[in-house]
Amino acid sequence: MPATKTRKRSSRKTTTRRTSRRTAPKSRTTRMIYAFGRTRTDGHASQRELIGGKGANLAEMTSIGLPVPPGFTITTETCAAFDARGGKLPTGLMDEVRTSVRRLERETDKEFGSDTNPLLVSVRSGAAVSMPGMMDTILNLGLTDTAVEGLASLTGNERFAWDAYRRLINMFGDVVMGVDHHYFEAEFDKVKKKYKVSEDTDVPAEGLRMLCDRYKKVYRKHVGKNFPQDPYKQLQAAIEAVFRSWRAPKAIAYRQINEITGLVGTAVNVQTMVFGNMGDDSGTGVAFTRDPSTGKNEFYGEFLVNAQGEDVVAGIRTPQPVIGMKKWNADVYRQLLGIRKTLEKHYRDVQDIEFTIERGHLYMLQTRNGKRTAAAAVRIAVEMVKERLITQEEALLRVPANDIVQLLLPSFSAADKKKVTCVTKGLPASPGAASGALAFTAEEAVERSQAGENVLLVRRETSPEDVEGMHHAVGILTSTGGMTSHAAVVARGWGKCCVAGAGALEIDERRRRVTVNGRTWGSTDILSLDGGTGEVLDGAVTGSVPKMSSEFTTLMRWADRHRRLKVRTNADTPADSKRARDFGAEGIGLTRTEHMFFEGDRITAMREMILADNIKDREKALAKLLPYQRKDFEGIFKAMKGLPVTVRLLDPPLHEFLPQDAESQEDLAKALGVKRKAVRRRVEALHEANPMLGHRGCRLAVTYPEILRMQVRAIVEAMIACRKKSIQAKPEIMIPLIGTRAELAMLRTQVEETIAKTKAARKFTGRLDIPIGTMIEIPRAAVTADAVAEVADFFSFGTNDLTQMAFGYSRDDINGFLPDYLHQAILEKDPFQSIDVDGVGALVDHAVKAGQSTRPDIKLGVCGEHGGDPASIEFFDRVGLEYVSCSPFRVPTARLAAAQSAIRARQADAGKRTTRTSRARKR
Amino acid sequence: MPATKTRKRSSRKTTTRRTSRRTAPKSRTTRMIYAFGRTRTDGHASQRELIGGKGANLAEMTSIGLPVPPGFTITTETCAAFDARGGKLPTGLMDEVRTSVRRLERETDKEFGSDTNPLLVSVRSGAAVSMPGMMDTILNLGLTDTAVEGLASLTGNERFAWDAYRRLINMFGDVVMGVDHHYFEAEFDKVKKKYKVSEDTDVPAEGLRMLCDRYKKVYRKHVGKNFPQDPYKQLQAAIEAVFRSWRAPKAIAYRQINEITGLVGTAVNVQTMVFGNMGDDSGTGVAFTRDPSTGKNEFYGEFLVNAQGEDVVAGIRTPQPVIGMKKWNADVYRQLLGIRKTLEKHYRDVQDIEFTIERGHLYMLQTRNGKRTAAAAVRIAVEMVKERLITQEEALLRVPANDIVQLLLPSFSAADKKKVTCVTKGLPASPGAASGALAFTAEEAVERSQAGENVLLVRRETSPEDVEGMHHAVGILTSTGGMTSHAAVVARGWGKCCVAGAGALEIDERRRRVTVNGRTWGSTDILSLDGGTGEVLDGAVTGSVPKMSSEFTTLMRWADRHRRLKVRTNADTPADSKRARDFGAEGIGLTRTEHMFFEGDRITAMREMILADNIKDREKALAKLLPYQRKDFEGIFKAMKGLPVTVRLLDPPLHEFLPQDAESQEDLAKALGVKRKAVRRRVEALHEANPMLGHRGCRLAVTYPEILRMQVRAIVEAMIACRKKSIQAKPEIMIPLIGTRAELAMLRTQVEETIAKTKAARKFTGRLDIPIGTMIEIPRAAVTADAVAEVADFFSFGTNDLTQMAFGYSRDDINGFLPDYLHQAILEKDPFQSIDVDGVGALVDHAVKAGQSTRPDIKLGVCGEHGGDPASIEFFDRVGLEYVSCSPFRVPTARLAAAQSAIRARQADAGKRTTRTSRARKR
Repeated sequence: MPATKTRKRSSRKTTTRRTSRRTAPKSRTTRMIYAFGRTRTDGHASQRELIGGKGANLAEMTSIGLPVPPGFTITTETCAAFDARGGKLPTGLMDEVRTSVRRLERETDKEFGSDTNPLLVSVRSGAAVSMPGMMDTILNLGLTDTAVEGLASLTGNERFAWDAYRRLINMFGDVVMGVDHHYFEAEFDKVKKKYKVSEDTDVPAEGLRMLCDRYKKVYRKHVGKNFPQDPYKQLQAAIEAVFRSWRAPKAIAYRQINEITGLVGTAVNVQTMVFGNMGDDSGTGVAFTRDPSTGKNEFYGEFLVNAQGEDVVAGIRTPQPVIGMKKWNADVYRQLLGIRKTLEKHYRDVQDIEFTIERGHLYMLQTRNGKRTAAAAVRIAVEMVKERLITQEEALLRVPANDIVQLLLPSFSAADKKKVTCVTKGLPASPGAASGALAFTAEEAVERSQAGENVLLVRRETSPEDVEGMHHAVGILTSTGGMTSHAAVVARGWGKCCVAGAGALEIDERRRRVTVNGRTWGSTDILSLDGGTGEVLDGAVTGSVPKMSSEFTTLMRWADRHRRLKVRTNADTPADSKRARDFGAEGIGLTRTEHMFFEGDRITAMREMILADNIKDREKALAKLLPYQRKDFEGIFKAMKGLPVTVRLLDPPLHEFLPQDAESQEDLAKALGVKRKAVRRRVEALHEANPMLGHRGCRLAVTYPEILRMQVRAIVEAMIACRKKSIQAKPEIMIPLIGTRAELAMLRTQVEETIAKTKAARKFTGRLDIPIGTMIEIPRAAVTADAVAEVADFFSFGTNDLTQMAFGYSRDDINGFLPDYLHQAILEKDPFQSIDVDGVGALVDHAVKAGQSTRPDIKLGVCGEHGGDPASIEFFDRVGLEYVSCSPFRVPTARLAAAQSAIRARQADAGKRTTRTSRARKR
Repeated sequence: MPATKTRKRSSRKTTTRRTSRRTAPKSRTTRMIYAFGRTRTDGHASQRELIGGKGANLAEMTSIGLPVPPGFTITTETCAAFDARGGKLPTGLMDEVRTSVRRLERETDKEFGSDTNPLLVSVRSGAAVSMPGMMDTILNLGLTDTAVEGLASLTGNERFAWDAYRRLINMFGDVVMGVDHHYFEAEFDKVKKKYKVSEDTDVPAEGLRMLCDRYKKVYRKHVGKNFPQDPYKQLQAAIEAVFRSWRAPKAIAYRQINEITGLVGTAVNVQTMVFGNMGDDSGTGVAFTRDPSTGKNEFYGEFLVNAQGEDVVAGIRTPQPVIGMKKWNADVYRQLLGIRKTLEKHYRDVQDIEFTIERGHLYMLQTRNGKRTAAAAVRIAVEMVKERLITQEEALLRVPANDIVQLLLPSFSAADKKKVTCVTKGLPASPGAASGALAFTAEEAVERSQAGENVLLVRRETSPEDVEGMHHAVGILTSTGGMTSHAAVVARGWGKCCVAGAGALEIDERRRRVTVNGRTWGSTDILSLDGGTGEVLDGAVTGSVPKMSSEFTTLMRWADRHRRLKVRTNADTPADSKRARDFGAEGIGLTRTEHMFFEGDRITAMREMILADNIKDREKALAKLLPYQRKDFEGIFKAMKGLPVTVRLLDPPLHEFLPQDAESQEDLAKALGVKRKAVRRRVEALHEANPMLGHRGCRLAVTYPEILRMQVRAIVEAMIACRKKSIQAKPEIMIPLIGTRAELAMLRTQVEETIAKTKAARKFTGRLDIPIGTMIEIPRAAVTADAVAEVADFFSFGTNDLTQMAFGYSRDDINGFLPDYLHQAILEKDPFQSIDVDGVGALVDHAVKAGQSTRPDIKLGVCGEHGGDPASIEFFDRVGLEYVSCSPFRVPTARLAAAQSAIRARQADAGKRTTRTSRARKR
């Protein structure tokens, strides 16, 4: 196990770990301040550890010639020195700060604290890793009682100046000096009352001036000193506050919980303020270098004249499209277009930029890689390769593998959704979108959908009994259960939209209605589900049907060229199998046989089997199921001809097949001609306190070997039938829930005997190669995998159950505490969505090595939900599995993720080689 | 992990493993036959691998001069040679057999196949390890149509001779030649019909002679040959059959399932027959060298004149006490007394012997270490040390640690039990014995027992709600649940008798009655439970109260001198703590705090807390619980003064504290002044699909930190209160169900903060050392124990839950399949009773090493049920835990088991040293 752990740790937070050998400088005089500006820029993008992420970004933009408001960054090592001196700034720092401010004054032609043309700055913390719990921004620093007058006369806007000042006093008092924000709020309320207005923005300049006086009084009262009128005093206090905040309990706790170690401190960024609200020659905007929605290669954005950055975001005024700038200020627009080109060339990706024009001067405030839709991501990546901006590998790495599932499913546009109201939000359990009337039972869903209606199935939770109804519904909505509840897992398997665990729903199955916050919807009302966001929307929404682009096809072709890992699918029907094959599946990694028992008449035979109290009657009922199973398998083998199909023998506990309510039990009793009491007794006898840890999986085959025999016989007969039609069927028999070697040895013998008997009975003399293996989903099987492998041809990791048992988390009950665990950062992520590398992953890694130690040629795969999760796929690639298996709609995601993993691994190897070579050269 | 595995494997079946490097001899001429008899004895006790267990025992008895009927053993290597030659006896074997038979003829003055004085022999298989599936015994071999006449005239008992012959034909036909036994049975039936008798024994000699003819016809018909009249042909066929049976599918399967490898074959034992039914000068008997019931040092046994061994066992005739032999044949009696002395001196233990007197000659047929009661075991062991027969170490090893719990609990004698009938049998869940009237709910049990009645609590299963009722009942009987169900665990903790999982019970709680196989018992009827056997007995049985013998005290003193492992106890009350301390507990390893919430008013406050929907109300309810908790802890600290007390914070899911039925819910609603619906809703909201994997343990502390705070406060306040009274309280705070390092880090901080706050509030300025640690019961915590140990002062392995999750077995549901698993030998034993060394043990071993790698001084213990199981204790000793913790009544068992483990480890080390020394000498 240690091997995986080390590897894993080094893959996480590499930035932070790399510095762990660094120690804080003692008294060596190293540079404490890194400038960025017209006359001098010291830092660059790779220096995140020394000058923080924000500082590095500002320096980089400046150094490639973008018009960034000048500023400087105080290093993280200075923070360490501050700590080492018991909270005192290092000697000489403030002198260097003064020198730097003087540079800013020169570059801006302004003066710090001036009463005519004051230089204002912002102060922000910025560590190598983004980290909540540290000090927030302080804006407008440098304003004083006199400078505010200067700002007012300079801008000709008194209101603007006093508003800026009152914000500074408030922020400085609160953030730097620890005065409770409420004291300031209370004063503001009084002033508003005085002017009989309710909005901040309606208070006139005069009122804001008065407010500044009141704020200063509040400040004096709680701080015990006057608000500092020396801007350098303001600046020093703000710098000290940022450094202190590095050691704030909240920040320390955050680093502890997230195991962020090796960082020496935070940097401080001091930057000149610019204002887009200084008149009609000023403005502010945001833009993307390409359309982030479609990926089209055209400049895309919007701007507002005489406004601040917040105004664009807040949406109070309606901004103009960026093309409108051409008229307003053609020169600035030309500059922007130039910057667009420079940025794409420099960053080699679409950029999302923020800019401000202060009195005709364009300033870049931010650039970052632009967020984009999945469709845009694919198009941009492929087109940038054609434009020779990036390589194929880079293109593949740049498309988030998780997102491309969106391209395969129907969706609602944001515009369409705006037309309706959001009723409540659940978990985005299975992407896609659907509108329909409400059905409250599976039976109802089947009937109404067969009558031509589009229905949503609305249930507290679903169980295998509901599967047929779920299949007929256009979407599924549940009030309990998490991302890996039954409803979620089944729906994802089908690519059907599902919103799960919408806790606000009060479902009244009997009266066929659902209530949310007092409002009620009945069976004829229509709701819409957005499975990608978890939104439940009131009324019908028109959705769009997916269309695969040529760029998508290109990208997938590239992915296949780069990956090592094979991708199979989890599919239980010929239709799903075919679809998955169309999406590029290279076999089936998991065919669940239990769903097959719910359709039509089969469930009655299944129930008859379960109610039988002797082996003869059980075999009689099983004989009825045999032809169905054989036909199912034949269909799947045909759809997957030439490709392997892993069939899992019966897994769920038998009680899942029996009706739980009295009425259905009576129906069943009648249908089978037994007493109702007998049905009820059997249901009671099968009841389990913890079904997840109960009588299921291979334990059923141990106690009822006749079930195993029937299923194996069906597989073999279907295989022989295919062979006769010259269809190459390649089944693999998978025995679930194995915990010990003896268990598998015994059941393997039974499977082999049944294969031999079936061949003999069918007089088939050819060779049938049917690998027999097991799921590794019980921790004990993983721990003792060396022994288990002696009798297994393959392992397929069932990481869902392995996660359940390794953590002791029931998927169905995890919602009781998971939100708190994520919120308090005890867990980084839901371990059912992405594999827990340290714990569950260590078990997988151990099982792989142990299994190979006794059977070097053992075939290894994974068929849990994690098989479709990119982060997990990277892990599985690294530990050396042969394939992952996932639901049909996630097959393209898995193909892409596998390619990304392979590329990253090659890059890491190349990196190591380079280091080795350069070291060798040095010798 | 591999380290443990190797160690474990080598500890099991050492005999068999040792031979794995041995290969079958090819054509070297090695000795194939080992003789035992007056004139020659080749083998001895240590040669089990070569001549099998039975052969070694016969040789040993012969060589120490006991009158054993002479015989010889064909080696296991001969069996291997037989296999290697494709089922042919090695050249020369039958010549050697003839030589050996001639020796027998000489020694017995009889002749093989003689028609006047025939030598008869038995043929038996015998491998190094006892193994079902191989060939059974063949008796009377050597009889032929002529020899039978010789036997008749020799014995003067025609009936005896023909009966012996018909038995031989039947056994030989069935066992050697594979003729179905039923064909012989059918002929016997016809003969009985002819003589109009129903018992075999009523058929006269003439009828048996006729039967022999018919048997021979059956033989000829099915074998195709006549029954062999050459005794050597009989013997050769029997030897071949024994060798063939080594490869019988049943025998191979048995070896595979039990992982018996390295054995080359079975031996064959050929031994002269002797008969105790040859007249009034003949007889047979069984005896113990000391009283196996009390251990008293006197000869103890019984015998029958003119009878066969089976007759004594069958109990058709009543045997006389062995002292009666003095009159019957003083000489033989004197011989027996001599043999008694010889045997004890030679085997250094009490022997259980079988003997036969054939016409005045005494023959020893068997000697083995005698089975004995726990009381006898203790007395014999201690007395034998005083007699200088054995050492202290040997005495300690000789008493089965598991059995001594019987000495501490009331019991029914076999004689007492014979007076009543056994109604049904459940699992022997908690030893002891009790009689009482039946109570069907916990409330009823409390009321009636308070009114002075002795009641048994009869439930389908129990839950924490029933704890008070269980405590008041004299015994507990359940119809479902296994050895580690709630009822079983709680009862064992108290040393209270419990029979669990008695599936035949149909309990009707409403009508207050229980039905078994159609018979019904009501609430005034009396049943008795034997918790040591699982018997449910009809009516009252007088039990005996335990009395500790001086030998017991001596043995325990010796045990303490030899053990390394400390022994703590699991106790939740001052009374249990005190009792455990009297039994020698050196601290408390587990105080469960949840049971404390069920008593009296507390449950109402607890329920109020659970029903609160905001933190304020929860804290208000918790404030009511605080004084109770503090008082509980104070009591326990006092009882354990000076010794460590590990307190586990709240563990079970909250729904276990709420009433589940409508009526009780209504009562609760009234008591709390809330709506009934509110109670029902909360119960529903708390319902979980798999509570074992749900919202419990430290997960409660994460979501409701106020519960943790209240409990920690109670602990600290109790500690301070003790300190003021100069009582040394040594609490250790244990956080249950930890799965990740972050979880423990966060909760540890909370505990530390609460300790500090409580100290401050109480103005206590002294030092309080309270170690904070966790249970390791989640597989993930074991896997990542290196990280967890960074924030844990101690680990206490909760091997119950660790077993549940490592195997994926719910303790409450395991009965659905465990019987099949044990029956089919997939599991050697219930992993909840004795730790699964390969799987769960590997996790424990890994966690120990990983934990010590980051915190070398981490304190390690175990508090699961396994802490009282001797085999598990040996494992825990080996992996280096500091202590085990078990229920009070198992403390002496654990002390003894710990001593045994330490002694065995020392012996193994000494063995290794010797080997090393002797190897060194050879060089």
